[in-house]
Amino acid sequence: MSEAQGDIGVIGLAVMGQNLILNMNDKGFTVVAYNRTTSKVDHFLANEAKGTKILGAHSVQEFVAKLKRPRKMILLVKAGPIVDDFINQLLPFLDQGDIVIDGGNSHYPDSIRRTKELEAKGFLFVGSGVSGGEEGARFGPSLMPGGSPAAWPHIKEIFQATAAQVKGEPCCDWVGETGAGHYVKMVHNGIEYGDMQLIAEAYDILKRGLGLPEDEIADIFLKWNKGVLDSFLIDITANILKFKDDDGAPMVSKILDKAGQKGTGKWTAIAALDAGMPVTLIGEAVFARCLSSIKEERVRASKVISGPQKEEFKGDKKQFIDDLEQALYASKIISYAQGFMLMRETAKELDWHLNYAGIAQMWRGGCIIKSVFLGDITSAYQKSGNLESLLFDDFFNKAVHKAQPGWRRIIAQAVLWGIPTPAFSTALAFFDGYRSEVVPANILQAQRDYFGAHTFRVMPGKENAKLKTGEDIHINWTGRGGNVSASTYSA
Amino acid sequence: MSEAQGDIGVIGLAVMGQNLILNMNDKGFTVVAYNRTTSKVDHFLANEAKGTKILGAHSVQEFVAKLKRPRKMILLVKAGPIVDDFINQLLPFLDQGDIVIDGGNSHYPDSIRRTKELEAKGFLFVGSGVSGGEEGARFGPSLMPGGSPAAWPHIKEIFQATAAQVKGEPCCDWVGETGAGHYVKMVHNGIEYGDMQLIAEAYDILKRGLGLPEDEIADIFLKWNKGVLDSFLIDITANILKFKDDDGAPMVSKILDKAGQKGTGKWTAIAALDAGMPVTLIGEAVFARCLSSIKEERVRASKVISGPQKEEFKGDKKQFIDDLEQALYASKIISYAQGFMLMRETAKELDWHLNYAGIAQMWRGGCIIKSVFLGDITSAYQKSGNLESLLFDDFFNKAVHKAQPGWRRIIAQAVLWGIPTPAFSTALAFFDGYRSEVVPANILQAQRDYFGAHTFRVMPGKENAKLKTGEDIHINWTGRGGNVSASTYSA
Repeated sequence: MSEAQGDIGVIGLAVMGQNLILNMNDKGFTVVAYNRTTSKVDHFLANEAKGTKILGAHSVQEFVAKLKRPRKMILLVKAGPIVDDFINQLLPFLDQGDIVIDGGNSHYPDSIRRTKELEAKGFLFVGSGVSGGEEGARFGPSLMPGGSPAAWPHIKEIFQATAAQVKGEPCCDWVGETGAGHYVKMVHNGIEYGDMQLIAEAYDILKRGLGLPEDEIADIFLKWNKGVLDSFLIDITANILKFKDDDGAPMVSKILDKAGQKGTGKWTAIAALDAGMPVTLIGEAVFARCLSSIKEERVRASKVISGPQKEEFKGDKKQFIDDLEQALYASKIISYAQGFMLMRETAKELDWHLNYAGIAQMWRGGCIIKSVFLGDITSAYQKSGNLESLLFDDFFNKAVHKAQPGWRRIIAQAVLWGIPTPAFSTALAFFDGYRSEVVPANILQAQRDYFGAHTFRVMPGKENAKLKTGEDIHINWTGRGGNVSASTYSA
Repeated sequence: MSEAQGDIGVIGLAVMGQNLILNMNDKGFTVVAYNRTTSKVDHFLANEAKGTKILGAHSVQEFVAKLKRPRKMILLVKAGPIVDDFINQLLPFLDQGDIVIDGGNSHYPDSIRRTKELEAKGFLFVGSGVSGGEEGARFGPSLMPGGSPAAWPHIKEIFQATAAQVKGEPCCDWVGETGAGHYVKMVHNGIEYGDMQLIAEAYDILKRGLGLPEDEIADIFLKWNKGVLDSFLIDITANILKFKDDDGAPMVSKILDKAGQKGTGKWTAIAALDAGMPVTLIGEAVFARCLSSIKEERVRASKVISGPQKEEFKGDKKQFIDDLEQALYASKIISYAQGFMLMRETAKELDWHLNYAGIAQMWRGGCIIKSVFLGDITSAYQKSGNLESLLFDDFFNKAVHKAQPGWRRIIAQAVLWGIPTPAFSTALAFFDGYRSEVVPANILQAQRDYFGAHTFRVMPGKENAKLKTGEDIHINWTGRGGNVSASTYSA
């Protein structure tokens, strides 16, 4: 056996794997490449990897043997049982302290399980979110590693060198324990759904509301991209809107309005429901894709349901467009505030110690949601690691106050026009609920106690001899059924 | 062994079980009662069941022996493994064709599994939703049985006699196969969350918006209860608002605004996400409870975030209140339309043959969401069993068109006031999306193709040589990376 030279190994030579290998090679690391279909290894070495230091392996045993200890092995294979298959293939050849890294799109409960399983056997496990698609993998992705904390010192240099850099800072840091890396990647994807939906709603208001052509809308997005909304998604939306088909018509006007999804947005919404956190904007963004996908039913509905009489906009267009920028900005603040609330709650439940400033910095570059905005979030969490919510940070608090009047005007106008704004609207509803000392849930609790004897608590300051703090109170609302108990009724 | 006399047996003598037994006894059936802690059986026979035909059993064997064949046995025990425990205890004593009925709050996947397991052994299984709480169980619940279709002829008479009756029709009919009964009960509970949230939002607008005292709000609800909103929940809300504490203050003003939940609303929202159906109103209703529950954070937020300057309402109050009734009514139509869309989609996936008119009739009485409205839904599905959506039904189509202007005015006003209306708003956003032949999901698809080569389809009528119907189309938006493939990027 030849001497081990590999700094890190990669299993899985699909485009993501190939690109990540080439990227790490560019940064000076010696990478060992392996693929189940070994002809792919040879093809890669003879083509894309030609003239590099990249080493190939034709068996798992050879792959492991070529790696320096502690071995660092990244799996870039299809999420699911295949990950476990490869881990099981690797295990017989590993030494204590070796590090198995899953860089695929695994669901975080699997990463929690794998961390525990591998640690129990004396190995280390890292589940790392990898974002930015193939171009990100090649030139600098966002990397979100979590799992066994003892692994981090060994992989830090390679990971941070390989990741995207923004103002000299890598878009990679340690996220937290067990499944935290993949959890944070999931929330990232959910936020991506939200950002995209917000942009689609802004486009819709400009298109169907103001009646602007795609070129003018593109110019508005270009202008926004120089301000607080400066981001990859705003930028590419401008490019998309400028893109013409051969006949000169905007390409977007020819694209079917049925949005696909791959499930990670849905995962986030389900995680939010399970955690009991109101991550409403991602929820609405996922549902908006669902509604888009029943195109044929919508077409039939459009023929039998009419909206309000469309009135031409008579107000100040420039002011309206500025309002729309603020509406988009404020909604985005809410979406990120909700996403971080979800992470905070999950960290509490699972006893993770999440690095919130680091997470924002990891998303700052290299991924689909990269933006100047994430730099501001990084700053907020750097100032206060225990920040309860973005809305408590001075910068965002001022921003949302400033945005508020325009945000409200835009939604009120869209409502009267009949243009759907599920994400803008839910963001505002959350904002107004969040800043409400009292919400009308007292009615819900009274109803629940009335029909199901579910009991309620007393409002602070309203205590008396019958209504005591900390007690579950039941009222005999009807004068009947005083002996009722809620133990068997579920609602 | 004495001769079997029991028409049906009930296992589990918590209040729900006792009440259902007394109800069936009133209807002339001979019921056998069993409970694991057998002292409960004796206590029940000596007290609540004194002077009735109700029989007791002190062992599972005795319980089974006292039942006529095919035996019909209802479990009213805590959902979860206890149900399986009891089924396993029963099995050795049963004959082929005997019918095990789970009347607890089981999650529908368990009922799917149990149907298959029992049918494989030659028995029949029924998972039945039971709604209406303890009072419903005693005097007429809503019963939603599903499972083995062969069981229905044997239990139909007892179930329909025991259920609530509305205009001579029982609130019980066969729902569908395997887990359909518990599925429909779950959707019922989700809709209940939605109905309650809509009422809470209407209350909030009257209270914080118009500044009305509880007594006046109660009178408005009483008036609404004579119209299209006539329902149990509107009725009890009026009673609740009239209810005074000893000092004369409205009791609701003393109830803490943190709403609890038992998870079935959450289940519905998750089922909607899994089915890819935009059941947005239930989703928002669940999230509204989540937001209510972080009371302490809201109180802190209320001190650092201010809303719009509150302006006194200068419009026509009567018109505004009529608008609000229409907003509540239209939102409710949307919520039920979404719930039935979800059931339709799930039935398609699981190959259930759901009885939609029957489902509406089952909810018409006996349960928390009972209402005149559900009679109208029953009629809609009786006219057309394959109704695509309530919004295609003449009655509801007219209703929603009539409601539309007021609905929009209410939301626009609430948005400007800063009063959160997550459920009203999401209902309208759904309505405006649903009636849109084109939604801005073309932007999402363009973005997804731009950053991840996810491809798109062509809009009907826009086909050309490059953009062909039925093909997955990828555009090289940037002039770079033409060879990119989406196979490994998930977003």
